[in-house]
Amino acid sequence: MTINAYAALEPAKPLEAFQYDEGALGAFDADIAITHCGVCHSDLHLADGDWGVDGRFPMVPGHEITGTVTAVGDAADPDLVGKRVGIGWQRGSCLSCEWCVSGNENLCDSSVATCVGNYGGFAERVVLDSRFVHVIPDALSSENAAPLLCAGITVFSPLLRYADSMSHVGVMGIGGLGHLAVQFAAKMGCEVTAFSGSPAKEDEAKELGAHHFVNGRDDDAMKKARNSVDVLIATAPANIDWRPYVRAVRKMGVLCFVGIPSDPISVTMRDIGANKAIAGSVIGGRHEMRQMLDFSAQHDVVAWTEAMPMDNVNTALSRLRENDVRYRFVLEK
Amino acid sequence: MTINAYAALEPAKPLEAFQYDEGALGAFDADIAITHCGVCHSDLHLADGDWGVDGRFPMVPGHEITGTVTAVGDAADPDLVGKRVGIGWQRGSCLSCEWCVSGNENLCDSSVATCVGNYGGFAERVVLDSRFVHVIPDALSSENAAPLLCAGITVFSPLLRYADSMSHVGVMGIGGLGHLAVQFAAKMGCEVTAFSGSPAKEDEAKELGAHHFVNGRDDDAMKKARNSVDVLIATAPANIDWRPYVRAVRKMGVLCFVGIPSDPISVTMRDIGANKAIAGSVIGGRHEMRQMLDFSAQHDVVAWTEAMPMDNVNTALSRLRENDVRYRFVLEK
Repeated sequence: MTINAYAALEPAKPLEAFQYDEGALGAFDADIAITHCGVCHSDLHLADGDWGVDGRFPMVPGHEITGTVTAVGDAADPDLVGKRVGIGWQRGSCLSCEWCVSGNENLCDSSVATCVGNYGGFAERVVLDSRFVHVIPDALSSENAAPLLCAGITVFSPLLRYADSMSHVGVMGIGGLGHLAVQFAAKMGCEVTAFSGSPAKEDEAKELGAHHFVNGRDDDAMKKARNSVDVLIATAPANIDWRPYVRAVRKMGVLCFVGIPSDPISVTMRDIGANKAIAGSVIGGRHEMRQMLDFSAQHDVVAWTEAMPMDNVNTALSRLRENDVRYRFVLEK
Repeated sequence: MTINAYAALEPAKPLEAFQYDEGALGAFDADIAITHCGVCHSDLHLADGDWGVDGRFPMVPGHEITGTVTAVGDAADPDLVGKRVGIGWQRGSCLSCEWCVSGNENLCDSSVATCVGNYGGFAERVVLDSRFVHVIPDALSSENAAPLLCAGITVFSPLLRYADSMSHVGVMGIGGLGHLAVQFAAKMGCEVTAFSGSPAKEDEAKELGAHHFVNGRDDDAMKKARNSVDVLIATAPANIDWRPYVRAVRKMGVLCFVGIPSDPISVTMRDIGANKAIAGSVIGGRHEMRQMLDFSAQHDVVAWTEAMPMDNVNTALSRLRENDVRYRFVLEK
């Protein structure tokens, strides 16, 4: 079976039409006809070779995939055929270690990434482990669901872990991840403050559900924001002085990084002494993924997307590189 | 009423006999005849002026106090009179802010320290707010209870917050705090690893309940200890490379500082990305204090103490300065 896709044949080059042969369906595999695929900053990093090159090229990016199951292997659930489904960053894990059996497959040492060492979703089809395929609730459009599968779960998981309806949640960085975090937190019943270096985003942040807006580049505003939030989700992988954000966190609160700043963060006990924490979080497990999709359907969480034909993938990537997107490109069939 | 005490008249000088006048009992006050007072590293820092000098001298250290209530003010619980009680680091708070009403008085902005700006427990008596006086369970001796009131609560609080009976707990630093942390964790049902730079402490750590011992100065041992503990309580305020300890923490785990390293700690997302956290913790609230005392009574948690007449306070302080103590001096009447 030949699959038509778009690949970076070598790092940092425009994607090109690319064909590859997929063998027979494995026992647990699902064959998915892709209708939509979100474009995540990680796709840029992968296609540019920022996170490694060996054995990854040709690289078919794409890990926010929605589509329809057309066939499954012998051991897979036959009821999946015909279902509208989604796949996120992860397409496999050992399914037997302590992390897997406790619903934390995202932490499995044998986690398999959808488009690292495997061909991803910038393609007409994809074949992968049906056990990492998530049925999309009817209330969610396929275009909307696509960004939820990576950007959404990445912020939903730490919110589920750290926030409750009485939390004052801060979201630092209002972009692909942040605009979903604001919606999730607001719809979880939290008071929400958006932190962004772009004052122009204030209106949008409030439209998304933020109750307050703080310009993160305004020192006075950041001083006023000290001790204001219980949970602060840092979505921007910026190499900045993080202390003003640490100080924005209240006693007993947590600053949780979901973006990946390349530089170390410096923390003193003065910063975190009052029972505070600095945490990291990476995507989410399968159960959380389904909770996130259900929550989004129930509460009408809507990714702000700009759809684009998959042929235009290079336009999407170059505009994303310039941050010229509000807030997620979704390639469509 | 004149109270006989021992005070540093100026920073970093030996303590001297010192008398001060205490006015009439305030409405909520308790007058306590001190029988025992633990000697904590913080007392050294305070007496040396390390943490500030203004208005603190003469300084009467001592904040691990046990004794008997001899009188109370009009508004205090009269049943306290005659009771054997303890006082820890904190002698007051506003009792009305969100932290106080949620049992986190230790985080109150108006927290009053027992011996900072007030005369502490290296004395024959102390008068302070009866609402921060904790009745000592019968099963605990006064000498044993004294170190629990600061060293004990400081490690019990984060264990209560972060550990459960399935946790593998690491305790870094086997001293006044650490030797209690090992006991608490073992008696909470946890698997316990003691980390110490003193291999000579292995036997003692195991006697305290540790199942494993790691020499923190042995790079190979620390490599082997990677991903070994879910909760790591760092009791030593050392300015070291903390990365081996961050790496000793498992996925979803937490490295919690209860000592106060003066230098910043450097953290990268690679360190904490797998849903890990770096946290701080400071003493505990009143409810936790009572839970800690009850737990200690129930499970026979025993501070390893060396009792010494209060007259010998300078000997205790100079031996503590040399770390010549296993593991807590307790001054007695």
